[in-house]
Amino acid sequence: MKTPIPDYLETLLDSVREDTSGEVADYIPELAAADPDPLGMALCTMSGRIYGAGDDRRMFSIQSVSKPFVYALALQQRGWDKVQETVSAEPSGEAFHELSLESGTNRPMNPMINAGAIAVNQLINGEDSSVDDRVEVIREFFCELAGRELQINRQLCYSELEDAERNLSIAHMLRNYKVIQDEAHDAVLSYTLQCATEINARDLAVMSATLAGGGIQPVTGKRILNPDVCRMALAVMASAGMYDAAGRWMTTVGIPAKSGVSGGLIGSLPGQLGIATFSPRLDAQGNSVRGVGIFQKLSADMGLHLMAADPYGDSALRNIHTEGDATVIRLQGKVNFSAAENILNEMETEDFGGRRIVLDIERVSSFNKVGRRMIKEALRRYREQGHDVAIYDPENILTDLVYSDGTEAETLDSLKEHSLEEKD
Amino acid sequence: MKTPIPDYLETLLDSVREDTSGEVADYIPELAAADPDPLGMALCTMSGRIYGAGDDRRMFSIQSVSKPFVYALALQQRGWDKVQETVSAEPSGEAFHELSLESGTNRPMNPMINAGAIAVNQLINGEDSSVDDRVEVIREFFCELAGRELQINRQLCYSELEDAERNLSIAHMLRNYKVIQDEAHDAVLSYTLQCATEINARDLAVMSATLAGGGIQPVTGKRILNPDVCRMALAVMASAGMYDAAGRWMTTVGIPAKSGVSGGLIGSLPGQLGIATFSPRLDAQGNSVRGVGIFQKLSADMGLHLMAADPYGDSALRNIHTEGDATVIRLQGKVNFSAAENILNEMETEDFGGRRIVLDIERVSSFNKVGRRMIKEALRRYREQGHDVAIYDPENILTDLVYSDGTEAETLDSLKEHSLEEKD
Amino acid sequence: MKTPIPDYLETLLDSVREDTSGEVADYIPELAAADPDPLGMALCTMSGRIYGAGDDRRMFSIQSVSKPFVYALALQQRGWDKVQETVSAEPSGEAFHELSLESGTNRPMNPMINAGAIAVNQLINGEDSSVDDRVEVIREFFCELAGRELQINRQLCYSELEDAERNLSIAHMLRNYKVIQDEAHDAVLSYTLQCATEINARDLAVMSATLAGGGIQPVTGKRILNPDVCRMALAVMASAGMYDAAGRWMTTVGIPAKSGVSGGLIGSLPGQLGIATFSPRLDAQGNSVRGVGIFQKLSADMGLHLMAADPYGDSALRNIHTEGDATVIRLQGKVNFSAAENILNEMETEDFGGRRIVLDIERVSSFNKVGRRMIKEALRRYREQGHDVAIYDPENILTDLVYSDGTEAETLDSLKEHSLEEKD
Amino acid sequence: MKTPIPDYLETLLDSVREDTSGEVADYIPELAAADPDPLGMALCTMSGRIYGAGDDRRMFSIQSVSKPFVYALALQQRGWDKVQETVSAEPSGEAFHELSLESGTNRPMNPMINAGAIAVNQLINGEDSSVDDRVEVIREFFCELAGRELQINRQLCYSELEDAERNLSIAHMLRNYKVIQDEAHDAVLSYTLQCATEINARDLAVMSATLAGGGIQPVTGKRILNPDVCRMALAVMASAGMYDAAGRWMTTVGIPAKSGVSGGLIGSLPGQLGIATFSPRLDAQGNSVRGVGIFQKLSADMGLHLMAADPYGDSALRNIHTEGDATVIRLQGKVNFSAAENILNEMETEDFGGRRIVLDIERVSSFNKVGRRMIKEALRRYREQGHDVAIYDPENILTDLVYSDGTEAETLDSLKEHSLEEKD
Repeated sequence: MKTPIPDYLETLLDSVREDTSGEVADYIPELAAADPDPLGMALCTMSGRIYGAGDDRRMFSIQSVSKPFVYALALQQRGWDKVQETVSAEPSGEAFHELSLESGTNRPMNPMINAGAIAVNQLINGEDSSVDDRVEVIREFFCELAGRELQINRQLCYSELEDAERNLSIAHMLRNYKVIQDEAHDAVLSYTLQCATEINARDLAVMSATLAGGGIQPVTGKRILNPDVCRMALAVMASAGMYDAAGRWMTTVGIPAKSGVSGGLIGSLPGQLGIATFSPRLDAQGNSVRGVGIFQKLSADMGLHLMAADPYGDSALRNIHTEGDATVIRLQGKVNFSAAENILNEMETEDFGGRRIVLDIERVSSFNKVGRRMIKEALRRYREQGHDVAIYDPENILTDLVYSDGTEAETLDSLKEHSLEEKD
Repeated sequence: MKTPIPDYLETLLDSVREDTSGEVADYIPELAAADPDPLGMALCTMSGRIYGAGDDRRMFSIQSVSKPFVYALALQQRGWDKVQETVSAEPSGEAFHELSLESGTNRPMNPMINAGAIAVNQLINGEDSSVDDRVEVIREFFCELAGRELQINRQLCYSELEDAERNLSIAHMLRNYKVIQDEAHDAVLSYTLQCATEINARDLAVMSATLAGGGIQPVTGKRILNPDVCRMALAVMASAGMYDAAGRWMTTVGIPAKSGVSGGLIGSLPGQLGIATFSPRLDAQGNSVRGVGIFQKLSADMGLHLMAADPYGDSALRNIHTEGDATVIRLQGKVNFSAAENILNEMETEDFGGRRIVLDIERVSSFNKVGRRMIKEALRRYREQGHDVAIYDPENILTDLVYSDGTEAETLDSLKEHSLEEKD
Repeated sequence: MKTPIPDYLETLLDSVREDTSGEVADYIPELAAADPDPLGMALCTMSGRIYGAGDDRRMFSIQSVSKPFVYALALQQRGWDKVQETVSAEPSGEAFHELSLESGTNRPMNPMINAGAIAVNQLINGEDSSVDDRVEVIREFFCELAGRELQINRQLCYSELEDAERNLSIAHMLRNYKVIQDEAHDAVLSYTLQCATEINARDLAVMSATLAGGGIQPVTGKRILNPDVCRMALAVMASAGMYDAAGRWMTTVGIPAKSGVSGGLIGSLPGQLGIATFSPRLDAQGNSVRGVGIFQKLSADMGLHLMAADPYGDSALRNIHTEGDATVIRLQGKVNFSAAENILNEMETEDFGGRRIVLDIERVSSFNKVGRRMIKEALRRYREQGHDVAIYDPENILTDLVYSDGTEAETLDSLKEHSLEEKD
Repeated sequence: MKTPIPDYLETLLDSVREDTSGEVADYIPELAAADPDPLGMALCTMSGRIYGAGDDRRMFSIQSVSKPFVYALALQQRGWDKVQETVSAEPSGEAFHELSLESGTNRPMNPMINAGAIAVNQLINGEDSSVDDRVEVIREFFCELAGRELQINRQLCYSELEDAERNLSIAHMLRNYKVIQDEAHDAVLSYTLQCATEINARDLAVMSATLAGGGIQPVTGKRILNPDVCRMALAVMASAGMYDAAGRWMTTVGIPAKSGVSGGLIGSLPGQLGIATFSPRLDAQGNSVRGVGIFQKLSADMGLHLMAADPYGDSALRNIHTEGDATVIRLQGKVNFSAAENILNEMETEDFGGRRIVLDIERVSSFNKVGRRMIKEALRRYREQGHDVAIYDPENILTDLVYSDGTEAETLDSLKEHSLEEKD
C-alpha cells in the first residue's frame, strides 16, 4: 500500500493550480523575470518524514520567510531580554506607520516586519561581527535547519541592493535611534544576503518542522534550538506573520505562518507539522495567492488549527486491577499535565485494599516534564501513606526515578505473572 | 493519596499573595468599595474536574471576561460571515484610536474591546430582540456554560450606567455607522447587564474549559458550542485578549486569555484546561496584578504554552506482528493526522506476506476526523491490492466503518487467539 | 454713476452658476429636501456697507458657520486661559481620529470641529446655565452681530436630533473626560439649537466683517468683541476652518474661512472685508462647491490674500519744510508701527535749524496704539533736546496728548499761515 | 532726535536676557560646543531700514530657517503645480508619524519639516543638477536675499553628515516613493550644505522682509520673488513653521515664523516687517527659548498680529467739492479694494450738478491693482454718463491711464486754481 498523503497533496495542488491571479514581485529584475507558474508544497512530520508534491524541489530565495528563523537564532544566542530590548513582539496592526517603530521606545514593532528583521539580523554573532561572519553564521544555521548545504545567491542580493531604498531608510532610522550599531549600508547588505539564501519547499518544510517540534531537527534528530525559543518564535509568527490580516488568518486558518516575496509560505503547527508552499504570484498583501489557498484548504480539511481541541476521550489511565497482593495501575499514551491530572484523580478515588501498588508504564509512549513530576509525586505520597510502591518500566521511559525527597523508586523487572490475568 | 494539584494551586497563590500593588477599579462606587484582598483560582480539566484554591467561590461580576463567551454565542447563532460584517478580528495594537473602529469599514477592530463587545451583544437573539430577552438569552447561556444558575447584579448595572459615558459614546458612534440598530442607551444597558452577571473563579474555569474543549461543557457533558466557533473565539482571545500587550503575553505566557475590571482573568488552553483567577487589584493596563502573576508562573512551571511542542516520541503504531495467516497491526493512543501519518508510513514499508491484515484498535483512545479518514483509506487500499482486511474494535471507537468507496469494513468479534502470543 | 461692485459680484456668481456638481447634505430630511439651486453672496466692508448678489436674502440655517462666532463669544466671556483648558487650537490634520481629541489632554483639537464646538458651546453663560438660557445668550449674540433679529428653527433642530448619533457620541466622550459637565443630550441639544439659527448671506457678511474689523459691528458701530478675541478666532479659522485642506486653502485662497453643511461659507479678511456665500451643494469635504469657487476667484481677482503685501511706496511722512522759525512735519494716511517707523527715521536724519517743530497731522487718517505712542515719544525727545514742539490736529485725531513722562503736548489752533507757502 | 526703536529693541532683549533655560542642540560637536549666551535681534522694514540690537552681527548657520526661502525659490523656479506634486502644504499636526509623509500620496506633508525640505531642495536647478551647482544656486539666492555675500560652512556640513541618520532615512524613503531622483546621500549632502550657510540676525531680518514685502528685497530694491510665491511661502510658515504648536503660535503670536536648530528664529509680517532673533538655547520643541519670548512680547506690545484689524476710520476719499464748473474728488492714502470701495460708495451717492469731474490723486500714496482698476472703472462710467472727466496726478502715481474700453483718461497739469479755494 502506498500512503494516501502524497495523493492528498496532489489534490491540494490541483485545487489551486488554475488560479493565476496575482502578480510576481517586480521591484527587481530577477524577481520580475521569475517564472510565475511553479507550484509546489511539502510537509514534514515530527518524525522527519517529508511529503512533497509538484515543484517541491524548485529552488528560490527564502526572502522574508527567513525572519522567524533568524529571530529564533537571535533568541537562542542572546536571550529574550536582550532581543526584547531591540525589537518588540506586538502586532503592528494597520500599516499606517511607515517604519512600524513603537512609539516611545522606537523599537521595531515586531521581528516579522523589515524594521524588526533588520534589527534582529544585527544581533547575530554579536554587534561587532563583520557582515561576512554574520551572514556565514546565519547560512550555517539555515543549513543545519534544512539538513543540507544551502547557498546564498549573491547575484540576486546585489541586484536587490540596487533598489533597497526602503530598507536603507529603515536602517538609517534604526541607527538614528541606536537600535543598531552597524552602518546602514552594512546592515541592509547583511539582511539582504540572509534573504537571498536559496531553498526549496522541502527545505522550508523541514525548517518549519524544527520550530514546530521544539527545536529538534526532525530528520537529523539534532537539537538546534531550545523549546522556549521555538515557542516565542511561533507566538510571533501567530500574531504578526501574515501582515495586516494576522487576526483573520489566525481565526480562520489557525496556523502560525510566514510568507516571502519570492512566493514561499511556511506554517508551523506545534508538535505536529512543518508546512511549506511555493507559488510566486502574490496578492495585494504580498502573500502567495495559491499558497494561501492551500493553507486554507489544509486547515479546513485536516483540522490543523492551533486552537483545535482534539476531541476528548483519551484515558491515560488504562485500568487498575488487583493482582494477588498488588494493585496494578496501568498507564498508556502520552503523559502530560492533563493526562497526569486524569490519572491522579482516578487513583485518588480508588481504595487500595492491598498494600502493594505497581505502576505499569509499559504502554506509556512519553512523559513530559510536568507529567513525570506529578506521577512520581503521587507514588511518593502513597509510599508515605505506608504503601509498598513499585514501577514496571521495561523501556526506561521514566528516565529518572528519584523522588522529590531524594529517595529512589523501586522498579520491577517483570510484570509477566500479572499480565497473564489481564482482563481489560 | 490526595492528588498534589490542590497543593500546587495553594503554592501558586502563596507566590503572589504578598503582592498588593495595583488598584481596584474606582469608576463606580460598587467597584471602588470592593474588598481588594480576595485571591482565588480554579482549574477545570477536559473531564470536568475542578480544582480550586483560595477565594475560588467568592462571587464577583464577570465584566469583560464575558466578551469571548458572548462572541462565541454570536458566532454560534449568526455564523462567521454575519459576525465578521459587524466586528473585525484584528488586534487593535496601540490604543491610540479612541474608539478602535477599523478605518474604512468603521467596524470595531475586534470583539475584545468595548466597541466590539457592544456590537457583538447586539447580535444575540436577533437585532429585533428586546433588551430583556437578549440579556436573558445571554444569562441562560452563561448558566449552561457554568453548569449552574447565575444571577445578574442589577444594582451594580444601574450604578455602572450612571457613569457610562465612554460606552454611550461608543454606542452612539456604532449607531452612526449603522453597526448597531438599537438605541445607544439600550445597547449599553444590554451590554452592561451582560457584564453584571455574577460568577466565581470556579464558574469561569468551567466556562473556559468549555471553549478549550471545543464546545462541550466538561462537567455536564453537554455540547454548547461548535468546535469551529470555539477555535475562532480562542484565536481572538490570543490576538486581542490582553489589550496592548497581546504580543508579549502570547510570547511569554502563551495562553489565550481575557481579563475583567473586577479582577477576573481567564485562560483557555485548547484540549487541555480552563483556568481562572480572581484578585481585584489591577495594573496600569487594567489586568489583575496577581492574576497575571499566577498565569506567568503556571505557564513557566507546567509547560502550558499554546506553542509548546510536546516532546515527540509517541508511536501510534504499537506494533505489527504475524499471527497465523494474519498480520496484526496494533494501534494505540490518540489518532490524529500526525499519528495516522506515522502509522501509514510504517505500514507502507512493511511487506505483508500473509494475505490477511487485522487492524487492532483496542488500545486506541480516540480518532479525530482526519485520523479516521486516513486509516480507513489505508485499509481500503490494502483491500484493493487484494488483501483480506479486518478491524478489531471491541469498543466501537471507529464509529463509522464505511470506506470512501461506499463499501464497509469487516470487523472481528475477538482477537483473543492472536493476543495470547503477543510479544511486544 | 453706479459702483461697479454689484456688477462684479454678479460676474462672480455667473462664473460658478453652471456648476451643479456636489450634493446637498442628506442626513436629515429637512436638508435633503432643500432646494439645491440657490446661489447668493454678500460682502460687508469695514464701514458697514453691504453688497449682495443673487439669493443673498434667502434664509438658511447657520450650522457650522456658527463655530467661529461662538468661539469668539466664549473667549470674550471666559478668557483665553479658560477656553484653552477646554479646547486646543491646533489643526486636526488628517481626519483619521474619529473624535479629534488631542492625545494626552483629551481636549478637542480645535473649535472648528464638532467636538470642539460642542465643548465651546458649553462655556457660554457659565457651566451651570440652563440650555434655554445658554441658547438665548447665543441667539442674542448672533442678533447683535447681524444687527437684526434672528430666529432659531426649532423644527429643524428637533429633526437633526433624531439622527445626532455622532454628536451624541462626541458629547458622551467629552463628558467621560470631564471636558463638559452637562448631560450629553443637553450639550447636543444646546449645540444643535445654535446651529439651527436662521440667517442669510447678508447677515453672515456683516457677522464676518465684525470679526475682520476687530469686534466692532460695522453697521451699528457697536463694539461686540475685543480685538484680541477677534484675532484669535480668525487665527483658528485660518488654521482649521476648512477641514483637511486647511493648508492648501490658506496657501491658494488665503482668506480665513468657515463652511457649513447647509451651504454657507464665510471669509474674514482682517481690516478689510466680511464675505459670505450660499449654495447648498457640497463637495466630498463638505464645503459648498460654488462657494469655494467664488472664494478662489475673489482671492485671485482682488488680491484678497491674508499674506498679500500691499505694494510698498506709502510715505506717511508727507513732507518737512521750514515755515518762518518753525519746521513743519506733515504726516498723512494711517500711522501704524511701519508708518511711525518710517516717519521717525526720516525725522532722525533731518537737521532742524529752527528751534520750533510743528507736527501737522491734519492729513492723518488714523493712528493705531503703537503708532501714536511712537510719534508722541519722538516729540517728547525733541522737547527734551530743547526744541519747542507743537501739534496741529484740527480733527483731534491723536485723542490723547499726554507724553510718557506725564506732560502734555502743545497744540496749535491754526496752521493756515504755513500752509499757504506749502511746496510739496 | 534719535528714533526710539533701537531703545525698544534693547528693552526687548533685556526682558529675556536672564532666561537661561533650554539647551543648545548637541547632536553634533560644532553645535554642542556653541556659545549658548549670544542674544541678538534685528528688524527690517519695507523700506529696507534695519534696526539691530545685541549680537545682531554674530554669524551662525541658517539651518531650518532656510526652509521657507528655498521653498519660495522652488515655487519661483518650478511653479505651484510642480512643487505641489512634490510636497503637500498641510500642517503635520502631532508628530506621531516618523517621516511625515502624507498617507496616500507619500508626499511630505509640508516643506517646513525635514522630509519636505529635502524634497524641495531637490527641485532647485532641475532634477539633473549636480549637487555643487544646486547648492551654488541656493547660496547665490541667499546672497541676493541678504544683499551681501554669504558663505557655506563646509566644515560644519561635513560634521553634520557624520550623524545624519535621520535625514538619510528620510531621503531613502523619498527615493523609494520616487519623490526625489538623486541618490539619498547626495540629497542629504545638498540639503545639509543649504543649512550650513552662515548668516546673522540682520541678514535674516532682510531676508524675511523680502518675503513680507512680496518679493522685493527692501535694501537693494531688486525684485527677487513674485508676490504670489511670497504669499504661498508665508501661508506655509503660518500653518507649519512652528512644528507641533503651530495653531497656538498663530493664535497668540500671530506672526508667520520659522525656527532653526542653531538658535535662529524669523518672522515675516506681510507688508510690514521682517524680524529675526538669535539665541542658541532651545526648548523641548526645538525653538529658541529667548527668541520665542521676544516674539511674544513684540506681538503683544506692537499689535504685530497677522489677524490684527487696523482700527478703521481711514477715509481714502478726502473730500468732494465744487470748484467752478468742476466737481473735485480728492483721494488720499493707499487705494486698495477696501479704499476703492469706500470711494466709489461715496461718489455714488453724490449728485454732481456740474458736468466736469476732476479726480485729484495728488495725496494718494499708492494704488494696488484692484484699487486702480476700480477707480478707473468708476471714471469710465461717469464719462459714459456724459460727464467730462479728468485726473490730476502730478506724480504719475496711477501709472496707467487706459480704461477697460481701451480709451485713455484725460489728465490735468495743474489743479492750482482749485486748490486755492480748498476748504477741507
